[in-house]
Amino acid sequence: MNRIIKLKNTVSIVSHASVGGREERRGPLGDKFDFCDSSDLFGKETFEMAEGEMARIALNTALSKGNLSHTDIELLVAGDLQNQCVGTSLGLSSFGIPFLGVYGACSTCTESLLILSSLMSASEKISYGAAVTSSHNASAERQFRTPLEYGGQRPPSAQWTSTAAGAFILGRDESKPKISEVMVGKMVDGATLDGTNMGAAMSFAAADSILSYFENSDTSPFDFDFIVTGDLGRVGSDILKDILSKEIPGFERLHADCGLLLYDNKLQDAHSGASGCGTSASVLSSHFLSMMEKGLIKNILFLSTGALMSPSSLLQGLNIAGIAPLIRIEAASNKKL
Amino acid sequence: MNRIIKLKNTVSIVSHASVGGREERRGPLGDKFDFCDSSDLFGKETFEMAEGEMARIALNTALSKGNLSHTDIELLVAGDLQNQCVGTSLGLSSFGIPFLGVYGACSTCTESLLILSSLMSASEKISYGAAVTSSHNASAERQFRTPLEYGGQRPPSAQWTSTAAGAFILGRDESKPKISEVMVGKMVDGATLDGTNMGAAMSFAAADSILSYFENSDTSPFDFDFIVTGDLGRVGSDILKDILSKEIPGFERLHADCGLLLYDNKLQDAHSGASGCGTSASVLSSHFLSMMEKGLIKNILFLSTGALMSPSSLLQGLNIAGIAPLIRIEAASNKKL
Repeated sequence: MNRIIKLKNTVSIVSHASVGGREERRGPLGDKFDFCDSSDLFGKETFEMAEGEMARIALNTALSKGNLSHTDIELLVAGDLQNQCVGTSLGLSSFGIPFLGVYGACSTCTESLLILSSLMSASEKISYGAAVTSSHNASAERQFRTPLEYGGQRPPSAQWTSTAAGAFILGRDESKPKISEVMVGKMVDGATLDGTNMGAAMSFAAADSILSYFENSDTSPFDFDFIVTGDLGRVGSDILKDILSKEIPGFERLHADCGLLLYDNKLQDAHSGASGCGTSASVLSSHFLSMMEKGLIKNILFLSTGALMSPSSLLQGLNIAGIAPLIRIEAASNKKL
Repeated sequence: MNRIIKLKNTVSIVSHASVGGREERRGPLGDKFDFCDSSDLFGKETFEMAEGEMARIALNTALSKGNLSHTDIELLVAGDLQNQCVGTSLGLSSFGIPFLGVYGACSTCTESLLILSSLMSASEKISYGAAVTSSHNASAERQFRTPLEYGGQRPPSAQWTSTAAGAFILGRDESKPKISEVMVGKMVDGATLDGTNMGAAMSFAAADSILSYFENSDTSPFDFDFIVTGDLGRVGSDILKDILSKEIPGFERLHADCGLLLYDNKLQDAHSGASGCGTSASVLSSHFLSMMEKGLIKNILFLSTGALMSPSSLLQGLNIAGIAPLIRIEAASNKKL
């Protein structure tokens, strides 16, 4: 079955913004972020509220950069990692934009862009929509593992949940990068129940989506400047390259992972790399879309990767499933396609 | 702004199923459920795993009733109330169906039907999709409030989270009830921070969606047999009727609430009524779609209602936002429209 959906009507990324905290500012992409707060609190009293505020700042910044108001936005698709996705509802409810909440663990950025672009392709009367994704190191550590104050030891395979958010305004401007194809991911059993090795759990889902895409697409891998995964980190990226090097010779030259781009592993204590759904959202905005807008790249496959598990499911000894929805982003001037 | 999206291509509910536990079997709709397990465990060791199993049974039953296999289903949109929606991923991952996870609190049933029907209307090559929603009393009480063993006292405004699941197979069969319009809900501040009075928090969002629909629709309220809300319960339904009785005279005769239909309040200790996203899912399947298939009703507005909050947000003193996405379901033979 061909799962690729080609979007019939133009849906383009007309504006976008990235927001981060202290470690994101210190990392190699720090200068490219629109806004960073070294306190990680964004003027709020708790880290949970700070995450909502970060999502607000990201959306407001994207609106400002696009010369738009929140009243122009007709549909909001958003999510985060907090229990009951409450970062999103706390941060974004006062905008009063019609809202669809999504949960895709760290795949939320691609999932929300996929749903929003598909709905906008389906209903031409939606002029502008927004997709917002956030994660916060302190709120995520408290909900998934232990509060930071506990000082838990992290194994080398563990990743560092980013304090980051990305917001994307989708519209109809043909001079902007467009989302041309989308493909929904499958839940793939990661054959692991180790919650400190989520890269491994997600790598199989990423491989499944990439292979399924090229089996059914009229493109070849080398039509793309990059095949970008969300947050496989070092461990997950190595597994993905092991799997795909036989199927797609030269894959390692095309592959980039947002989880390996956000921090400098020599200077920052990120272990296997960054994770959290803010990772792929902020790196897509600050790095890949910026490069595309400068004409440096023309065509990418973008797959945020999620590990579907909860602290309860881990304590009950249940396997972690991975998921990797996929979108294709093309520069406006991409004549060859 | 007119938020109503009319679906261009026929998307119909070709099969559906409801699953419940002990209290759901004892309630007035008990005989209409496809499957109930009086142990609430569905053969599993934990209540969290039981919720996933309930979702599995619901999807399998809907497939069986529709003479379909899971390999016929090209897209699955699903969610539940467990942290990180893990009931859904545990229960449904092994089907291997491309998956979009959604989180809308108790609005998940309508949200998932809205997203699925819109995507199927957009992409005609999707022949069959499935929407599945579940909630489990024991897993929800543990995650939102206290474990059942604690024996916490419930105030009269509290609702009873249902142990229930509903599954809906959407296809293209014009002889079946169709989803003809959808409208995304707004997050509306419920002006309450009482987590034991979610009906009040959700009632304002339901009023907002109903009023917005009729301001922009070419229908009048009395074109509908019922305007169905998800789980406002007694307290929330009374508030909704107070708000709308001035705007829509006679509204109380059209209104039905799934949270007031699932249990018999004289015989069962449900207080203000049922809640949990399985409530509207199982009542839509067992009650409203059954009536429509028998020709007893022809046209309903269906709005599951969600309260967007988490235990952390309540402890931090933050208001609860409500949300109420809306779909219109019409019988196949509805000639008057």
